[in-house]
Amino acid sequence: MEIAELQRQAGEWLSGQGPESDIVMSSRVRLARNLGGRPFLTRATDEVKTEIERTSREALLSAALAEGLLYINVMDATPIERLFLVERHLISKEHANASGQRGVALGKKERISIMVNEEDHLRLQVLCSGYQLREAWVEMATLDDKVESRLDYAFSSQFGYLTACPTNVGTGMRVSVMLHLPALVMTRQIDKVFHAVSKINLAVRGLYGEGTNSSGDFFQISNQVTLGRAEEDLIRQIEDVVPQIIKYERNVRESLFKDNPKGLEDRVWRAYGMLRFARTITSNETMELLSQVRLGVNMKIIEDLDINTVNELFILAQPAHLQMCKGKKLDSPERDVARATFIRNWLE
Amino acid sequence: MEIAELQRQAGEWLSGQGPESDIVMSSRVRLARNLGGRPFLTRATDEVKTEIERTSREALLSAALAEGLLYINVMDATPIERLFLVERHLISKEHANASGQRGVALGKKERISIMVNEEDHLRLQVLCSGYQLREAWVEMATLDDKVESRLDYAFSSQFGYLTACPTNVGTGMRVSVMLHLPALVMTRQIDKVFHAVSKINLAVRGLYGEGTNSSGDFFQISNQVTLGRAEEDLIRQIEDVVPQIIKYERNVRESLFKDNPKGLEDRVWRAYGMLRFARTITSNETMELLSQVRLGVNMKIIEDLDINTVNELFILAQPAHLQMCKGKKLDSPERDVARATFIRNWLE
Repeated sequence: MEIAELQRQAGEWLSGQGPESDIVMSSRVRLARNLGGRPFLTRATDEVKTEIERTSREALLSAALAEGLLYINVMDATPIERLFLVERHLISKEHANASGQRGVALGKKERISIMVNEEDHLRLQVLCSGYQLREAWVEMATLDDKVESRLDYAFSSQFGYLTACPTNVGTGMRVSVMLHLPALVMTRQIDKVFHAVSKINLAVRGLYGEGTNSSGDFFQISNQVTLGRAEEDLIRQIEDVVPQIIKYERNVRESLFKDNPKGLEDRVWRAYGMLRFARTITSNETMELLSQVRLGVNMKIIEDLDINTVNELFILAQPAHLQMCKGKKLDSPERDVARATFIRNWLE
Repeated sequence: MEIAELQRQAGEWLSGQGPESDIVMSSRVRLARNLGGRPFLTRATDEVKTEIERTSREALLSAALAEGLLYINVMDATPIERLFLVERHLISKEHANASGQRGVALGKKERISIMVNEEDHLRLQVLCSGYQLREAWVEMATLDDKVESRLDYAFSSQFGYLTACPTNVGTGMRVSVMLHLPALVMTRQIDKVFHAVSKINLAVRGLYGEGTNSSGDFFQISNQVTLGRAEEDLIRQIEDVVPQIIKYERNVRESLFKDNPKGLEDRVWRAYGMLRFARTITSNETMELLSQVRLGVNMKIIEDLDINTVNELFILAQPAHLQMCKGKKLDSPERDVARATFIRNWLE
């Protein structure tokens, strides 16, 4: 099974490289695209879905694009494998739980992923480590051109790219950054950020996008409106606000440390101690503790621990990853024990 | 200063040796004695106190007794040094806080200690590791004979040894065992023990005797009434009840482990993790965590950690010990940081 191969390496976006990566975990650009001459998926029969999936898959795997692309048939995947892909941010929860023919094409190190038959026929994603929205966009433009050279996109000269949901019509683009804001959460100043961001029509979401709670002090900030906006505008809108949030978080980190260095060190090291020694641990507690440890590594309170080791744990300690690793289904208490064991070995 | 010498070695009673030492931390026998022809201390002038102290000291340090005895002038000691002696169970709080000439003579490895001018002119103590009441008593009998050969005790053929407080009259003996009962505390069954023990006129006290709270799940069980009882009776009274408590604690430990091994392991290892990584820690939290770790070592959940390493920490992590170690007075937040550092180094 191809999915198992993914286990051995984590996505490049977890490397902790790239600008501002102490606060910006990742930058993401995604495009919604649909094939011309076919109905949107809400109105497509199983036969049509199957045809769209086959046409898309063949195009994606054709010579020009296939370099290093791995195609995974999501319909045939087990529930654990699907959740595994969700946990890695390669497919959405909706895609995992949908029915009918569907799949995902993955680029090297998971920088690129293309969902087939999610809400739209195609959802292209470029995911980079750190604050690299423009790099992601440039890469996306190339990818989009390549795909378009093989597939006929549904496009209207009046509206732009046509999408299943009107909010995506136009560029079909959503840009987002995943921010790690533990100091703003700790000092209860995070609500101010939400307030400011929502005023300028940006959305704040949790670690797994729409409809998910924040977890591990991660917040995804993305554009909401795409119709009538150029790609450049969408990126600039994010760029207008993210540096301010970065500065805010960084200032609060510094003053937390200045006001009570031992208190902050204690918090960070105790979190590390729990992770190093717990024998059973829930997913939620893991996220909370990892968030403190990530803060500690980025603030140089913890040395001798690579940031990618920590970043990867956020993903690897999740339920489907643990079950893939163990090679069997585990109930919740078993997972908590397996998680504690995995984390211990990982950190040792 | 002689007190500083004590720092380098911990009392033998912390060695974790002796029968039942997984539950019985220590066994103690103490005798209250007064010199004949002098008033009790409540009615003694400073001159008389000074004379009693000198007479006692000279007798204790005379050839037959002096072998290895270290005499500390408690009046001249600093407040931190006095507290240091209290923390080591060598003198009582009352002795530390009293006024006038007073001192304490210490035997090798602190197995023997003799307070001069505490509530009585002399308070002789033998303190052993584990459940060794009879051994302690035999040793005490020898010690008492030696002291009596040099000093004239206040004795009445009707009442026995005369003491400042009527509850000690007769044998002047108090026997006690220090029990570590974390499983009974955890499962809230400890009250049953208290209830049973108090019914048979034994006292349950905290780690530092009369008027102190339990700490670290330690409970000291001792006889209350000495008048009209032979030494043998006093010991037998403790021996009648302690094996039952030991058995009770041991059963609860076993069923805790049987019912939820991972839960218990988790509790123990997290406590260890906190101690290994905290950067600031209060005395109370330390006692609680050490109690879990002590349980873990005794239940072989934690291996590669000597029980005496843990036992000694209960004493060494206390305020005066930390300050003696640092060689200066520390306020409470400074102590919490110094404690965390000390514990970390100790366990590493």
